[in-house]
Amino acid sequence: MITISSASNAKIKKISLYTSRASARKEDGVFIAEGTKLVVEAPLPLLRELYVSESCLDSLDKESGRLGDSFLRITRELPEDAVIKLPDHLFEKISTMKSPQGMMALMNVPSYTFDDVIRGVEDSLPDSARTGAPLVLVLEDIQDPGNVGTIFRTAEAAGVTGIILSEACADPLGPKVVRSAMGAAFRMPFIIARDMPETVRMLEEKRITCYAARLDESSEYDKCDLTGPSALLIGNEGNGLSADITKAASRGIFIPMSGRTESLNAAISASILAYEARRQRNSK
Amino acid sequence: MITISSASNAKIKKISLYTSRASARKEDGVFIAEGTKLVVEAPLPLLRELYVSESCLDSLDKESGRLGDSFLRITRELPEDAVIKLPDHLFEKISTMKSPQGMMALMNVPSYTFDDVIRGVEDSLPDSARTGAPLVLVLEDIQDPGNVGTIFRTAEAAGVTGIILSEACADPLGPKVVRSAMGAAFRMPFIIARDMPETVRMLEEKRITCYAARLDESSEYDKCDLTGPSALLIGNEGNGLSADITKAASRGIFIPMSGRTESLNAAISASILAYEARRQRNSK
Repeated sequence: MITISSASNAKIKKISLYTSRASARKEDGVFIAEGTKLVVEAPLPLLRELYVSESCLDSLDKESGRLGDSFLRITRELPEDAVIKLPDHLFEKISTMKSPQGMMALMNVPSYTFDDVIRGVEDSLPDSARTGAPLVLVLEDIQDPGNVGTIFRTAEAAGVTGIILSEACADPLGPKVVRSAMGAAFRMPFIIARDMPETVRMLEEKRITCYAARLDESSEYDKCDLTGPSALLIGNEGNGLSADITKAASRGIFIPMSGRTESLNAAISASILAYEARRQRNSK
Repeated sequence: MITISSASNAKIKKISLYTSRASARKEDGVFIAEGTKLVVEAPLPLLRELYVSESCLDSLDKESGRLGDSFLRITRELPEDAVIKLPDHLFEKISTMKSPQGMMALMNVPSYTFDDVIRGVEDSLPDSARTGAPLVLVLEDIQDPGNVGTIFRTAEAAGVTGIILSEACADPLGPKVVRSAMGAAFRMPFIIARDMPETVRMLEEKRITCYAARLDESSEYDKCDLTGPSALLIGNEGNGLSADITKAASRGIFIPMSGRTESLNAAISASILAYEARRQRNSK
């Protein structure tokens, strides 16, 4: 472990740049994971640098619980100069959180292929992937970072094999998305697609039935057979799915609503649909 | 319609107090609904005053669409001095939104009873309530306003008859909750309970089966029969349901999770459970 106490240190300047500018992260192929629980869940092969505040380190020493053990295990695997201790005021300066917990990881961006998204990856292989039926989420222009993060988190729990995002979605490796995803951002295969209708056609060519979530009366979600290879297409909350994408999908899917609600939140829709697929697959 | 252009006007001072202080709202039995779409959905009997910015009024005049028609209909029903036009800078001063849309309503707090929550109210009566099977959500200490609002919105769509909140939940009529609820805050019966275990016992006495959402392996949610009178108990995201409430409930309910997810977001859990009840009730 090394100690840095000057704000003008090159590492501090670099990490401040990464926390504040998505373009700098993208250029260098890195992302930020902040928070004690998140950092100790970070997969070692992706971990580049670990920043820890003095008071956080003190509390780990005193408590010596599961968190401290995981932290020690990680630091042993990293080169000495990749674990950086900071005085609290300096950690607060680089933090992306309102109430910093004193732990931040600089991570390498994982790289996934179209096939990873369909098959899931070994490490996070959910039950449904083992049975060989892909379950893909396709997100169009979902801009709220909290929604994208929550979708990643629920997707892992529902047994989704991978996620395809349009370029206008919130950055799936932005600090807030990573926090909302609660570790799922490390494990859920995802790709960003330039041409969304073309992507939907590619899925259909692979015999993955694409279901476009709609507000009009298409097939009710629980009447659709989601036990086979399926992709669930979720649109931007304000506008829903674009006409081009809806047209490229072979099926529509509809969540019925009582009362006078006009639509559901995008993360809620994605979760209800993904969990219905899980329910059907498990009761087969 | 009257015009106010001074920030020191008594009405402006009052509304600024209401937007900034929950205690002032509570004391006077009012709440704030802001946003064009939300305001035109507001039920007339609850509407006390309507604030509109000059530029919003201009755009309504020009567009003369559904929004403008609804606005005109509302203003005709209100006393002349209850519709208040403000210059944009003054509207921005009272606004609770980052990008103000120029319309805000001061509303009377609706008053519901325990029976309303169980039976639903006439105006918003969902299919499930008509069949006579209560579907109640019980929320313990859900503190994020976005989560509470999203739960109200999804609850209406799922056919929930009413919601019971613990005192430590986010204020269901706080400006952010009302916005996230997208109109459901006007229609969904709710009460705030002082003694939550006692409330659960009252529900059980009314032969409403209480299902405590748990992370350990209790009954899987899709194996529970939710077609009868049911209450779904959802806990605070960090800690889950307290032991006292779990003990007071006659059943546990569990959403299975793949991968390494440890829990789901509280609004997601509530939505998956409420929609499973809806699915079971509709496929009976």
